[in-house]
Amino acid sequence: MIHWKIEEAGFNSENIAANGNRFLTGNGYMGVRGTLEEYTKEHLVAVNLAGIYDRVGQGWREPLNAPNGLYTILKADGVEYSLPGSQPCYHYCSLNYRKALFFRNTIWNTGKGQVAVESERFVSLADPHLIVMKYCITADHHAKIELITGIDGDVWDIHGPHYDDLAFSAENDCLTAVATTHENKDKVYVAEACSYDFISNTEYSIEDKRVLRHLSFTAKPGAKYILTKWISVYTSKDASDAGEAVRLALHYRLYGYDHCKDAHIEKWEEKWSVSEVMIDGDDAAMEALNYSLYHLICIAPRHSKSMSIAARGLSGQTYKGAVFWDTEMFMLDFFIFTEPEVAKTLLRYRIDTLNGALAKAKHYGYEGAFYAWESQEGGYDACSDYNVTDVFTGRPMRTYFKDKQVHISSAIVYGIMKYIHITGDDSLLWENEARGWKTITECAKFYYSLLLKRLDSNLYEIHDVIGPDEYHERVNNNGYTNRMAKYTFDTAIRIIDLMDGIDDDLGEKIKSEYPVEELRAKFSDASAHIYIPEPKEDGVIEQFDGYDHLEDATPGVLKGRLLHEKEYWGGAYGVASHTKVIKQADVVTWLALFPGDFPTEIMLANWNYYEPRTEHGSSLSACMYALLACRCGRPDLAYPFFLKSATADLMGGGKQWAGLVYIGGTHPAAQGGAYIAAIRGFGGLDFEGEKITLTPRLPESWHSLKFKVWYRGRLYLVEETAESAKIELLQS
Amino acid sequence: MIHWKIEEAGFNSENIAANGNRFLTGNGYMGVRGTLEEYTKEHLVAVNLAGIYDRVGQGWREPLNAPNGLYTILKADGVEYSLPGSQPCYHYCSLNYRKALFFRNTIWNTGKGQVAVESERFVSLADPHLIVMKYCITADHHAKIELITGIDGDVWDIHGPHYDDLAFSAENDCLTAVATTHENKDKVYVAEACSYDFISNTEYSIEDKRVLRHLSFTAKPGAKYILTKWISVYTSKDASDAGEAVRLALHYRLYGYDHCKDAHIEKWEEKWSVSEVMIDGDDAAMEALNYSLYHLICIAPRHSKSMSIAARGLSGQTYKGAVFWDTEMFMLDFFIFTEPEVAKTLLRYRIDTLNGALAKAKHYGYEGAFYAWESQEGGYDACSDYNVTDVFTGRPMRTYFKDKQVHISSAIVYGIMKYIHITGDDSLLWENEARGWKTITECAKFYYSLLLKRLDSNLYEIHDVIGPDEYHERVNNNGYTNRMAKYTFDTAIRIIDLMDGIDDDLGEKIKSEYPVEELRAKFSDASAHIYIPEPKEDGVIEQFDGYDHLEDATPGVLKGRLLHEKEYWGGAYGVASHTKVIKQADVVTWLALFPGDFPTEIMLANWNYYEPRTEHGSSLSACMYALLACRCGRPDLAYPFFLKSATADLMGGGKQWAGLVYIGGTHPAAQGGAYIAAIRGFGGLDFEGEKITLTPRLPESWHSLKFKVWYRGRLYLVEETAESAKIELLQS
Repeated sequence: MIHWKIEEAGFNSENIAANGNRFLTGNGYMGVRGTLEEYTKEHLVAVNLAGIYDRVGQGWREPLNAPNGLYTILKADGVEYSLPGSQPCYHYCSLNYRKALFFRNTIWNTGKGQVAVESERFVSLADPHLIVMKYCITADHHAKIELITGIDGDVWDIHGPHYDDLAFSAENDCLTAVATTHENKDKVYVAEACSYDFISNTEYSIEDKRVLRHLSFTAKPGAKYILTKWISVYTSKDASDAGEAVRLALHYRLYGYDHCKDAHIEKWEEKWSVSEVMIDGDDAAMEALNYSLYHLICIAPRHSKSMSIAARGLSGQTYKGAVFWDTEMFMLDFFIFTEPEVAKTLLRYRIDTLNGALAKAKHYGYEGAFYAWESQEGGYDACSDYNVTDVFTGRPMRTYFKDKQVHISSAIVYGIMKYIHITGDDSLLWENEARGWKTITECAKFYYSLLLKRLDSNLYEIHDVIGPDEYHERVNNNGYTNRMAKYTFDTAIRIIDLMDGIDDDLGEKIKSEYPVEELRAKFSDASAHIYIPEPKEDGVIEQFDGYDHLEDATPGVLKGRLLHEKEYWGGAYGVASHTKVIKQADVVTWLALFPGDFPTEIMLANWNYYEPRTEHGSSLSACMYALLACRCGRPDLAYPFFLKSATADLMGGGKQWAGLVYIGGTHPAAQGGAYIAAIRGFGGLDFEGEKITLTPRLPESWHSLKFKVWYRGRLYLVEETAESAKIELLQS
Repeated sequence: MIHWKIEEAGFNSENIAANGNRFLTGNGYMGVRGTLEEYTKEHLVAVNLAGIYDRVGQGWREPLNAPNGLYTILKADGVEYSLPGSQPCYHYCSLNYRKALFFRNTIWNTGKGQVAVESERFVSLADPHLIVMKYCITADHHAKIELITGIDGDVWDIHGPHYDDLAFSAENDCLTAVATTHENKDKVYVAEACSYDFISNTEYSIEDKRVLRHLSFTAKPGAKYILTKWISVYTSKDASDAGEAVRLALHYRLYGYDHCKDAHIEKWEEKWSVSEVMIDGDDAAMEALNYSLYHLICIAPRHSKSMSIAARGLSGQTYKGAVFWDTEMFMLDFFIFTEPEVAKTLLRYRIDTLNGALAKAKHYGYEGAFYAWESQEGGYDACSDYNVTDVFTGRPMRTYFKDKQVHISSAIVYGIMKYIHITGDDSLLWENEARGWKTITECAKFYYSLLLKRLDSNLYEIHDVIGPDEYHERVNNNGYTNRMAKYTFDTAIRIIDLMDGIDDDLGEKIKSEYPVEELRAKFSDASAHIYIPEPKEDGVIEQFDGYDHLEDATPGVLKGRLLHEKEYWGGAYGVASHTKVIKQADVVTWLALFPGDFPTEIMLANWNYYEPRTEHGSSLSACMYALLACRCGRPDLAYPFFLKSATADLMGGGKQWAGLVYIGGTHPAAQGGAYIAAIRGFGGLDFEGEKITLTPRLPESWHSLKFKVWYRGRLYLVEETAESAKIELLQS
């Protein structure tokens, strides 16, 4: 039995930033940080919008935060009661993540007695544009209450402000904000309608960056006064003016709070009916895992056919709201198995941003498609050449994530093929003038143009890259990268073969654009000759040329060498750069993705070799160690890494600030990684053609594991114990 | 008219380190820094030995400083008079660099009057093992004089002490020191014999690190008391025991000071009779240039058939006493033209250290010969992976001089061929089982193994190198490097062609070891396809791939960005690294070495483009700018760069210390570079087959330029004015 609830009792202002992430609610269109109604930008309030960006001045381009329609201030007898300023005598917060409801209850002592606020809110899963909140005031004495509530346009930004103009109105019982962005003059429309069950004096005010309603009344002791707010959010990408937002808010107000809440919960139950993973015998694991899945459901784009998920989900502007390989390698599996349409939407984003990838490759003098390391609208690479600040000099340090992390393109290919393989739906390849086919082909052309041949060798090499382990820059023949390039060549050949099966006109059209046979020959040659490092005598694969000659060390030893707690471990002179200490799973990721490449003892040898040398400085690391350990039949080794991945956001830990820059946020890749570790690792879910195979490798404490998956258009229920596995077809 | 003398009047203790270099004397076997007799290791006294090294502990390996046989202390009436401790009332130092005589005169006031020391010394050019000094005391009153003189074994070291054992004796009127090194148990033998023209009480003492003689007498007012010392230095590389040193010292004592001095001066006159460069109309230039040549003559190894010159000559242990490309590219020309046997000795050193170069290439996974960046005995590369200290963290910074500065091997090839071309003597190629031939062939094999071919290109590239400009590490297709590689391929082909002309047995032997025809085909292919960057529309050649995209800046602008005056400009994050500012001539060096590659306007365009972007942070830079400007017919542009090169050591400037580490020393590459600029630049000396051609491009102030050169076994006198050139055969 798990509670589907996370809670915090008592108020601690130090948790404001972390709680914004832990208590996040969202619906894929927007994410609302788990902050309180009275909070302002200083407390990192955000209604973070998916897929719409702005850049102002020299700062990075980042996603927009919409004006905050939840904004509400309480005054009693002329005194404001707001956290964190007014110390409460009681405070409690919770998130019911089964139903995606955020709740808060705070009580303050006034000179005359107590006033209390209880609020509940949700970001509707039934309507992507809707946020609803119920806000309830009680006092134990006759108190003159003033509620100031409306839309706060003074939003939190990391590199803002993004709105050149904010226009407000308060008409027809509805507040509206129209915010105009700097770069593209996009508009964000927010409307707020409210209802209240008490008689109040009502005034409106428009301040510089806020439109507000002032409700005044005298509260009777013990009586409840309920304010309900319906907030709608649109942008110029999905609405032509603010009228649409007004109509939506007023529309849902007609139906009332409970109706909206029921519809919302129903949608969530629909998701859980497929997505829930049941673990009998380990409530902590089940809680952490489903809490992770909650977050993934919160950020899945369902309002678009072509959109992806940012590395920090919808928790703010950290990492520029950009899409990383995290999506294809770590989040995608969950959606493929539980909500394949979302998976398709994520992949369409990559296919639709092929032009950006073509332009990037060309910029660096290569052929084909070099996908953005930090992808924004249109595939624009938001990654800077200077991603790290030298703590000793304050200078930006040249990093090579953008130009040398060439494995990114293979992640797109890997993601598309994973989707096709598991869903059986290859329409991505051929829809839209076969842009999926072209995407894969252009990625293969990219790797082909990277290949270098020494004159006295038959092997093709890839030099000067960064592998998954970012602490070692500009290395030659990173095993993971070369293996993924080979996979890309093989895939491109496979889909060239598929071309014969498609509509003739399309086949002819492609052939007029692509020298298909010549490409097939090139890719075959490349696949046959690309250098893939072999395990040495001890079974260990060298991560890149020369890794074996580096100083052997452990993360603990390196910590002792730090001169500054925040200094960068990588780059040219970092404490890890010239040692064997790596940031995250690298060879281990290769082996986890290609379990057929080597026998178990080789996989285990690499696990044993690399784990003590891994800092796990990325949230993408632990899940790969968990998955590979399972594939080696060692769930005992896997378990702590699974748990680390699953609790990445539950713990609410992690650094929130780097100097004055906010770096916190949720970790959807770790969430997705935990799911992979659970069902593909412990659950041993695998496939042979049309057949599902199951190899249970449950941790000792798990009596059973139950989950549902979509496979090739059919929904199955899987039930496993340590010794048995059962599969049931539920729907086809 | 020039004075052939540099002087310093007055005493300034701040000049001690710099004067050690400016007043240096030497004979190729050893260099004696221009320090005073009473100085000890704190004042950087050194009898620096050529070609013998020691390493102790974690410090670098460095050349030995021999126990100092010049050590002499003066006491008058029980009080010691030594600089810098005792303030003198008069002090004067000079170096007659025509005769290579060091002179000092110091007068102190005592309570009773004055005592004066005059000394003169030389490091004999007539015998490599001999140092002779005349030391004269006068007093203007009756003074009780004590002279303490002997051998000081407490030598200055940067990373010492190098002597595990010091054994002294004082027998048969001769002092000896036998010092045993730590690493190889080499021995250094120093013997000292003396004579004096006065009656003295004499005692001997052996202290911890010194063997001393105490001479006591009462000086009469105005009388001169002369002590003469004959010091001989051997090592276990050239003597079996200390007896040899003793015999030599006693032998020369028999002949007396004047005899030794005459023989020494005669040898110097012999050198000057060929080497002197006469410039009518510009005494400053003539002085600076001949002073530079003096230094080169001082450090030329004539006692060996296979030895080279360290980058700081025989001025100490800076740069580990290692041999850099400086020798082949900058110093060699002077010796080829004036003392070809020395040039041959320098090149034999490289040929004889081929095994070291083969081992280095193998270590880095390449074929052929990769010469040491900092070559010590046997071609051992003394260069560290960490050559620079980060001033902000105190940590060593990973540098790539050793592993990426691959152009070093081509410098060896270039040097050998320059020697052969100008002397007409190709014996280096074939002597010693054709090791010269093999050296060139192995260098070509090295470059061949570096070549990379993109699959979709016909060109061969060289990636991940450092060119002459060390501020830009790990670049692709450095124009200079690729051009020198092509030159190496072409040279290897030429000498394969030469094989037919040699002794048959040797030819057969080589063919049994080398697949000669296969190599010829490979090198021809490599030469034909290696990528050599072309001038762009504006005539400028891009220094390496991507240079054009770097931020444009000037050294002055970058200086303004420094946060610490001693921070390194290069490396991964230096102020120059991501800008167009370069450390030293790079493309300009290419064009200066290969004036036939492009027409004058291209050469000038590159000169004009790169000069304002060059920091000239290396003493190898100015001379290349001077040479190329001359080749463009612009002696006016060349002149300041020539002068900078020629006065590098005359000024005695330059930084002497980096923190607590001594980094000063002489700059033989700048001295040799000045020579090249003078006779090949301004003098326009060139060759067409057997014929010498002259294209005078004299600076405006030069009425005439006169010099002698050996060419193909004949000595010529060249006399030029701005409009005329005359050549006279002197000897054949």
